[in-house]
Amino acid sequence: MNKELAKKLIDVDMGRQEADLAIMNVKLVNVFSSEIEETDIYIADGYVAGFRGNKKAKKEIDAKGMYLVPGFIDGHCHIESSHLSPTAFSDSVLPFGTTTVIADPHEICNVCGEAAMKYMISSAGNAILSIYYMYPSCVPATPFEHAGCVLDASEIEKFIDEDIVKGIGEMMNYPGVANHDEFVMDKLEVAYRHKKKIDGHAPDVKGDGLDAYIAAGISTDHECATPEDLVERTKRGMYVLLRQGTACKNVLGLLPGVNDGNYRRVMFCTDDRQPQTIRNDGHINHGVNLAIGAGLDPVRAITMATLNAAECFGLDDRGAIAPGRRADFFLADSLEKIEPDKVFVLGKLVAEKGSIILRSRPVRPEGVAGRMNVKNFSEERLALKLESDHVRVIDIVPGGVVTKAGDAYVGRDKDGFWVHDPKEDILKLAVVERHNGLGNVAVALIRGYGMRDGAVATSIAHDSHNIIAIGSNDHDMAVAIEELISLGGGITMVQNGKVIDSHRLEVAGLMTDDNVDDVCRKLDDMHEKAAKILKVSPEIDPFMTLCFMALPVIPEYKLTDIGLFDVRIFDFVDINLA
Amino acid sequence: MNKELAKKLIDVDMGRQEADLAIMNVKLVNVFSSEIEETDIYIADGYVAGFRGNKKAKKEIDAKGMYLVPGFIDGHCHIESSHLSPTAFSDSVLPFGTTTVIADPHEICNVCGEAAMKYMISSAGNAILSIYYMYPSCVPATPFEHAGCVLDASEIEKFIDEDIVKGIGEMMNYPGVANHDEFVMDKLEVAYRHKKKIDGHAPDVKGDGLDAYIAAGISTDHECATPEDLVERTKRGMYVLLRQGTACKNVLGLLPGVNDGNYRRVMFCTDDRQPQTIRNDGHINHGVNLAIGAGLDPVRAITMATLNAAECFGLDDRGAIAPGRRADFFLADSLEKIEPDKVFVLGKLVAEKGSIILRSRPVRPEGVAGRMNVKNFSEERLALKLESDHVRVIDIVPGGVVTKAGDAYVGRDKDGFWVHDPKEDILKLAVVERHNGLGNVAVALIRGYGMRDGAVATSIAHDSHNIIAIGSNDHDMAVAIEELISLGGGITMVQNGKVIDSHRLEVAGLMTDDNVDDVCRKLDDMHEKAAKILKVSPEIDPFMTLCFMALPVIPEYKLTDIGLFDVRIFDFVDINLA
Repeated sequence: MNKELAKKLIDVDMGRQEADLAIMNVKLVNVFSSEIEETDIYIADGYVAGFRGNKKAKKEIDAKGMYLVPGFIDGHCHIESSHLSPTAFSDSVLPFGTTTVIADPHEICNVCGEAAMKYMISSAGNAILSIYYMYPSCVPATPFEHAGCVLDASEIEKFIDEDIVKGIGEMMNYPGVANHDEFVMDKLEVAYRHKKKIDGHAPDVKGDGLDAYIAAGISTDHECATPEDLVERTKRGMYVLLRQGTACKNVLGLLPGVNDGNYRRVMFCTDDRQPQTIRNDGHINHGVNLAIGAGLDPVRAITMATLNAAECFGLDDRGAIAPGRRADFFLADSLEKIEPDKVFVLGKLVAEKGSIILRSRPVRPEGVAGRMNVKNFSEERLALKLESDHVRVIDIVPGGVVTKAGDAYVGRDKDGFWVHDPKEDILKLAVVERHNGLGNVAVALIRGYGMRDGAVATSIAHDSHNIIAIGSNDHDMAVAIEELISLGGGITMVQNGKVIDSHRLEVAGLMTDDNVDDVCRKLDDMHEKAAKILKVSPEIDPFMTLCFMALPVIPEYKLTDIGLFDVRIFDFVDINLA
Repeated sequence: MNKELAKKLIDVDMGRQEADLAIMNVKLVNVFSSEIEETDIYIADGYVAGFRGNKKAKKEIDAKGMYLVPGFIDGHCHIESSHLSPTAFSDSVLPFGTTTVIADPHEICNVCGEAAMKYMISSAGNAILSIYYMYPSCVPATPFEHAGCVLDASEIEKFIDEDIVKGIGEMMNYPGVANHDEFVMDKLEVAYRHKKKIDGHAPDVKGDGLDAYIAAGISTDHECATPEDLVERTKRGMYVLLRQGTACKNVLGLLPGVNDGNYRRVMFCTDDRQPQTIRNDGHINHGVNLAIGAGLDPVRAITMATLNAAECFGLDDRGAIAPGRRADFFLADSLEKIEPDKVFVLGKLVAEKGSIILRSRPVRPEGVAGRMNVKNFSEERLALKLESDHVRVIDIVPGGVVTKAGDAYVGRDKDGFWVHDPKEDILKLAVVERHNGLGNVAVALIRGYGMRDGAVATSIAHDSHNIIAIGSNDHDMAVAIEELISLGGGITMVQNGKVIDSHRLEVAGLMTDDNVDDVCRKLDDMHEKAAKILKVSPEIDPFMTLCFMALPVIPEYKLTDIGLFDVRIFDFVDINLA
């Protein structure tokens, strides 16, 4: 609020000036009173001036009894998962009624650190969607891989006082909190000192451990997976997020824990939502509709998706439709299944019937474009010399991000190098460090991908986002890796030394300014080619599966740029077995 | 929170250190889940570490199933109304379970401006009770009287960023908001810029006017008087305070407006509570008990008195009993009528069975003691020369702060001076400017006080707190005024030129460091003397009535240091009638 705006709104309310817009005959979803209110609404300078009375407006829309719903707030997401830059992401989610997101730019910050944060903040400035950030707390996520940078307390300090930064992102290192690791505590201390929020990430943490985590000031959890855990967390004052992402889907599982007493500590989030999931299922409205479909009162579901999130993050200017708040809302025909018809941001029509009308202008990706600092790479670096036929193998588990620690007897040539056997579903996996020209290339074996002949590579490889490539032969893999480097990042498929297709992600190798429809078309096409040409197993997603094979916090075997890692013992292991 | 505290709490939770105190076998009133939870609670360094688990403590108390209730929060009060300095006030309310108050030091700031604010802040530093302030928005309350100072936007700016200052106090000038008066808007602008709250005061404001008031960012109202107004205010996002003061009592009247949908926007306050009301009826627990007695669910009543207020004012460290929050709570036997047994602040026992144990140490009242800057006063200044026998008279209305605009035919001596007629209940009223040595003395006539012979004077005279005196003769009035000046403020009674008794209020003429029991004894005694010796009408409070006779915002006739004021026309009027 500022004085000029306040005066304008007061003038409209007192009938001394006309509102810019009035939406007449709405059924307002009032999240303060938990009821539906038949009224008109007056908007001036992008804010709600007031309700039915003796006001006048330059322009009137007759909503003919449609519901007017406050814009949804996504309480926790990683924009990077959409493959879309923040401005393209804005265009993709506004049609679904999401008008504010709390984003943790964990992925891009792993790649570009401070430059990433600057880029994300400047993109948010251009986006019509309101984007707030939680500063990533865990970069790098582990000491077992090389990310683009190390973001310690002093780095957080640089951004924490920005209005757009609401606090510190998901503190995944809960053992670090329980043991008050100094590196962790120094970061929390920044939040304490600047009176900012700290987001949690505490799967399965309970009892004394949960007390400790909450006592440390961590106030949200989006990794809560059971109704019992939801009940325990909310009882201790935590906000629990009902997550509906592409892979992790918790809304229906958690809903039985939500009740009259605790629902004010519950909100919705998407966490990681792939572009196709956004296009096909929507965004926060998807989770809300699932909850309503499962019997949650629609006004309560909307309250959770709006006011609760706004209160959690101290966003006093939104989360409800009320005088002095942002005119961020949408009209919808029904509350049984919410499909936004007209979506307004700051009183402007930005989307209608599922299509974006007002697009956000991308920013120049300064310091984050084409970040491919790969040194000393050549096809020869992919060669895998074994000391034994009996080796460790990463076993893909379809439909998840975990793997199994497998073993196999494999073929070697006369010099001891691994030889691909087309009859066995074992391929080579490589991780190539791409951030600081360290020259690291690590190679391992992986089973269950299904591909017969060729290679796939991507620069999306959680959480450090080095280049990860899978292939039947070193040449195709090298071609794929080189193609990615020349693209500046993305996803590519190669067969017989030729690039079949590529999806370019020019922003840090993670995101693109292309629009969601183009991105989805490209990915659909590439999925089809992966199945038809490369024969990747229909049980797995050829690209997402790859993205998680370098993540050394999810069991059991993973490959980082340093080597093969056994998450169960939190240490590197030799590929060779006795 | 800070790092050392977090580490300590984590250690206690993880069993690596002992808690300072454990309270075993409590029925915890859980305001997050709206239920009663049987558990144990562990406290370290004044904060809640956690709940029943594998924790250990140096000391255990067995609560034997008593209820453990979060400390109550008074959402709006004027400490000055208690006649007690903030530290003495702390001692008076802690036994009733109030552990935090949001105070508007409107009265003392009218007297001493910046020095008052410094004194109040430094007193809060010494008080065991948590005291937060809303910076008074309306000093002086009107331009029709002389207060000690003018607090404009630049004065507010000096204090607004202090952590202890949560925002700007009750914006009484709602016509000023509706007309966006620049003096008012400049003050609101300070709150906008510093992202602080603005408290409201909007009796009977509705519809478009209410929209305007809320659009201006004013987010609370403690002057709401009907269930319908409560419903309208909460629907628009305002917090409504259920007030139970000495004179203004709204809890039972407003309660019918509170429902499942809106109760999270409702809290309790006392506003103005005289010392005897605190002693006899308690504090926030009084309003809470009235609500419970009227059928409100006790857990809901407690939620309103704790979490709702904490959320409204952004006090994340209290309002509930949960890990990482202040150990401010009390034990009570019953939730049907809440009578705190043991009260804890920061984990320390501060009161037990209605008596204070841990007293707060007063601060030196620098710049606020004995503020009696009266110039050119003498008995002769009280003489009232009339040009007519027919004059305007202030008619006291028993039981309230309003007066009626009366008239009377009175006696005059040969020089035209008013003569007291013992058969008529008409007395002289005088207001003597005491802040800046302006030398103002204004005199008028008043009816309905009942006193036969003598004078009463006080330095409590809302809102400017000049000296106000009532009397049958100029000499007794002059003696009373001189006595007050020499006391440095308070209340005094005189008859036949002799002081009968005085209640000294050495802090700004409004408050004392004496304890509540001594103050009440003194006031009881003086009330008795006022009735028995001075024969003040039993229908009115001899002192409180006087306190409101100079308040030129409450109809109809009032007397300020400038003259007789008719609130109906917002202008001064001549005492003489045709």
